[in-house]
Amino acid sequence: MKVTPAEAVKLQEVVMPGAERCQVRWLVDEDDGAPNFAMRQFEVAAGGYTPRHNHPYEHEVFVLAGQGVVMEGDKEHTLTPGTVVYIPPDEVHQFRNTGADPLRFLCLVPNSANTKAATVAPECGSIEQ
Amino acid sequence: MKVTPAEAVKLQEVVMPGAERCQVRWLVDEDDGAPNFAMRQFEVAAGGYTPRHNHPYEHEVFVLAGQGVVMEGDKEHTLTPGTVVYIPPDEVHQFRNTGADPLRFLCLVPNSANTKAATVAPECGSIEQ
Repeated sequence: MKVTPAEAVKLQEVVMPGAERCQVRWLVDEDDGAPNFAMRQFEVAAGGYTPRHNHPYEHEVFVLAGQGVVMEGDKEHTLTPGTVVYIPPDEVHQFRNTGADPLRFLCLVPNSANTKAATVAPECGSIEQ
Repeated sequence: MKVTPAEAVKLQEVVMPGAERCQVRWLVDEDDGAPNFAMRQFEVAAGGYTPRHNHPYEHEVFVLAGQGVVMEGDKEHTLTPGTVVYIPPDEVHQFRNTGADPLRFLCLVPNSANTKAATVAPECGSIEQ
């Protein structure tokens, strides 16, 4: 059994193309012996966002703190603490912090995600390319 | 994409043998098309607990609110909001609310858990049988 405060897990910059002001803690993963899926906690600073992309694996998300939106293609959904999001494989998505405080959420992926590539999507809505 | 407040998901009694004052919301599961694992939110009322048991699949847990302990066999670990727990397959465990408010936590399992049985373990520590 592993028991730890989330804050004790190393906070790393997200270096994926298209990420801005975005950090991650890998809370539970294959290094812990987890055989099927990984629990990550993302922290997106004010003005930041995750990549607008798609990939052949799912996300299961729970919002812990902050205010934001998740883009379903070009459609926007509001995020507040307690919001649950399921993103099926291959769907274009992006998380954006729309508040003044950090947006924190859990985002779980199958271990197979480590062997699959993401495809960065063109920007949507009012953002000029 | 599914986006919902956790509170909008049906709260059901946990009917597993050995559970007491314990409810669950299945936030994301196979009914949503989730191909690999399920996100559940447990709510254990004051004085309540989950079964003391083991099963051939893992748990990935994140504590959202309340105070409690998780038993690793007979060993007790404190739980507060933000505590992360990984329980490997086959390890005897139990979650207990030790506070006055509900203990709420996410507990994720692989979809294969639906086809596998849990084994209730004898009580431990100071609890008489």
